[in-house]
Amino acid sequence: MNKIMIKDLKNYYEQNIELQATIDNIRNLQWVQFVILKDSTGKVQMTIEKNDENKELVEIVNGLTIDSTLKVKGILKEAPKVKMGGMELIPEKIEITSLSEEEKPFNYNDLNNVNLDTRLDYRFIDLRNERNKMIFKVQSTLTRFLREYLYNNNFTEIHTPKLIGAASESGSEVFEVKYFDRKAYLAQSPQFYKQMAIASGFDRVFEVAPCFRAENSNTSKHATEFTSFDVEFAYINSYEDVMQLESEMIVYAFTKLKEELGDEIKRVFDVDINIPTLPFPCMTLSDIYKELEERYNYKVKEEEKVDLTTEAEKLCKRLAKDKFNHEFIFVVDFPAEKRAFYHMRDENGKLLGYDLIWNGIEITTGAEREHRYEQIVKNAKEKGLDEDVKFYLEFFKYGCPPHGGFAIGLDRLTMLMLNIPTIKESMFLFRGPNRLNP
Amino acid sequence: MNKIMIKDLKNYYEQNIELQATIDNIRNLQWVQFVILKDSTGKVQMTIEKNDENKELVEIVNGLTIDSTLKVKGILKEAPKVKMGGMELIPEKIEITSLSEEEKPFNYNDLNNVNLDTRLDYRFIDLRNERNKMIFKVQSTLTRFLREYLYNNNFTEIHTPKLIGAASESGSEVFEVKYFDRKAYLAQSPQFYKQMAIASGFDRVFEVAPCFRAENSNTSKHATEFTSFDVEFAYINSYEDVMQLESEMIVYAFTKLKEELGDEIKRVFDVDINIPTLPFPCMTLSDIYKELEERYNYKVKEEEKVDLTTEAEKLCKRLAKDKFNHEFIFVVDFPAEKRAFYHMRDENGKLLGYDLIWNGIEITTGAEREHRYEQIVKNAKEKGLDEDVKFYLEFFKYGCPPHGGFAIGLDRLTMLMLNIPTIKESMFLFRGPNRLNP
Repeated sequence: MNKIMIKDLKNYYEQNIELQATIDNIRNLQWVQFVILKDSTGKVQMTIEKNDENKELVEIVNGLTIDSTLKVKGILKEAPKVKMGGMELIPEKIEITSLSEEEKPFNYNDLNNVNLDTRLDYRFIDLRNERNKMIFKVQSTLTRFLREYLYNNNFTEIHTPKLIGAASESGSEVFEVKYFDRKAYLAQSPQFYKQMAIASGFDRVFEVAPCFRAENSNTSKHATEFTSFDVEFAYINSYEDVMQLESEMIVYAFTKLKEELGDEIKRVFDVDINIPTLPFPCMTLSDIYKELEERYNYKVKEEEKVDLTTEAEKLCKRLAKDKFNHEFIFVVDFPAEKRAFYHMRDENGKLLGYDLIWNGIEITTGAEREHRYEQIVKNAKEKGLDEDVKFYLEFFKYGCPPHGGFAIGLDRLTMLMLNIPTIKESMFLFRGPNRLNP
Repeated sequence: MNKIMIKDLKNYYEQNIELQATIDNIRNLQWVQFVILKDSTGKVQMTIEKNDENKELVEIVNGLTIDSTLKVKGILKEAPKVKMGGMELIPEKIEITSLSEEEKPFNYNDLNNVNLDTRLDYRFIDLRNERNKMIFKVQSTLTRFLREYLYNNNFTEIHTPKLIGAASESGSEVFEVKYFDRKAYLAQSPQFYKQMAIASGFDRVFEVAPCFRAENSNTSKHATEFTSFDVEFAYINSYEDVMQLESEMIVYAFTKLKEELGDEIKRVFDVDINIPTLPFPCMTLSDIYKELEERYNYKVKEEEKVDLTTEAEKLCKRLAKDKFNHEFIFVVDFPAEKRAFYHMRDENGKLLGYDLIWNGIEITTGAEREHRYEQIVKNAKEKGLDEDVKFYLEFFKYGCPPHGGFAIGLDRLTMLMLNIPTIKESMFLFRGPNRLNP
């Protein structure tokens, strides 16, 4: 990596350097030209005095446009008066490596009056905005530390196929693919395959990969393709082991992220990353409805209490704060019939799984899985799925340890972390029922 | 993570422990029962003497089958005579957590006479084989260190969409998806989108994600879905910067991998990981053909010399060894017309890109990209692609720095590293024209 990054320029005072960068701004004054150069690490001022000696350089700068890219040879001078880092680059040679059109689709430094759809149409311009670009630095760093926690605990990262032979979890929400002379489908999640890894003796696995959902829903939380952070591990004693691992992983990653990017996140998003305390609070679904009514006079009909209503989910933020002084809350004791057939139930039919709510939005569903062959076959039959998932049921025929896991939507996690209004902004390129471009 | 891993058992001598594990073997003798327990970290012997006190335990063990899973409470005894780690577990309580069927599809400890298709049909059994499972530990660890090198060099990991609006790179090899009331396609690579990140000012990006190729080819090197490790970075001076970064990344990852798993890889695969020296050797395509003829009397027709023939690719292993004492060799100066339109050519039409051959198999194509708007439009027109890739051409209209990148197929890299005969074995679940299951 020979390219000098702008953040490292202070090591090159009084030296002849070659700097590649993008033009952030140009001020063409009577006696002098200032060209502000940037890369992803910072900005620096290039100064050209309008004198005879610089005639050629001045001519080049006259033809420049903002967002063009340059390769500059010159001397880096210490210049305490220059606000931008107390230095300036005095060029000897300027080579234009690309010339931007003068007129942009919009000004990416001020997106307040730009329609979101226009921004998404020109996402490559939109992402030039400092805040928007920073979203992905945060996501990348967060993912790095989530993985790091799992590596430290002997997990193996796997890559399971997205092309699958049968529309398995639920036929209606699966994309169909023309696969030579037959049909294939796009995996809604790696659920079956991460469990296959457990049945194969992998013990602890995770995957970070796209998931596909053919849901025609247009909300700020849904996308037809998103990145899922999936975890599954064996030899657990109960779903509480899964909750414990997930909360410890979150605390680890948040702590490291805050150390590395906390200040920058505060500056750009005005967001404080709060490191949650362990253990995360946990309540049953029915206790939550009871307290929401007692505390906030929130009432819903009995028949709606089989799941968290959107409003109840939102109120969980307030409840977690008021009752536990916490941003997170585990919700347990959902009615089993509403949940996937592979979630384990105890002998009384109680679901051995949970949702995790962060600041009023669900970020995870986790559970102990049904690993006993007779029982998983029975569960699948009850849902009328036994033929579709036949290949999956086989995994449990030849011994499979007790296991559990969870999945976190990375885009949703990023959105919540940075207080971004919609998932359309926390994905590199959003995909929805009406958006397949660019 | 409360589960005691078998590798850590030596910390629990004379203690009452609870151990979850899978049954590796059972020896039911006249006076004693030996049950060998395993998890992904090792094996341990459980010993039950057949006396009155143990009547119930003996009864349980009589009903056990290999591959069943147990939760055992008992005392861990130091037992120097026991070959397996010098210890044994004396159970007080045995709980069967899953009971395997007695008859397996095949014996996964001896795969010599098992047909590969049968193994893939029952991949969840096949992966119980120690060697097969180890492949993925190596792949996961290797990927971890490849990423680590890039993190250390300020790269951002991105997740680009696999659902795309137009069959872009080449219509004939793209899978078609039913996307609500229109068509979508599966991305063949993240090429366009990692370049979009560069145009957006990300400077340095990578992605590890599935790629999809609708090629009806049935070889040991091809799959319709595979995991690609994609890298792209800005402000380069030439494609040689790309070659340099790739070779340094490989050396870094191989070195770390060898430290962590070298001994285990030697034991299981009888393979030595050789750390390549820097810089990797590099030859032009025409020089390679010249030397292959001179050294090994390998002759091909002139018209075939526009690319490496499969045989020439293989011979590159010998050439790299004989001429440079190296396993890797960069090949440059391919004729430009055979390459993608986004690869840069110099003013004489020379391609500014390379292939990297490892042990006689191509693992990478890399290049400087065409970042100049007028030129990339011209290149696309020449291939008749300008309408299909219109959205992509836009990326270069508003300034885009010089950049380049490469992609490594992770499954192929793993295959070569461990000397595995086919990619079908180095993928968790292989996908080919005739295989979509399990």
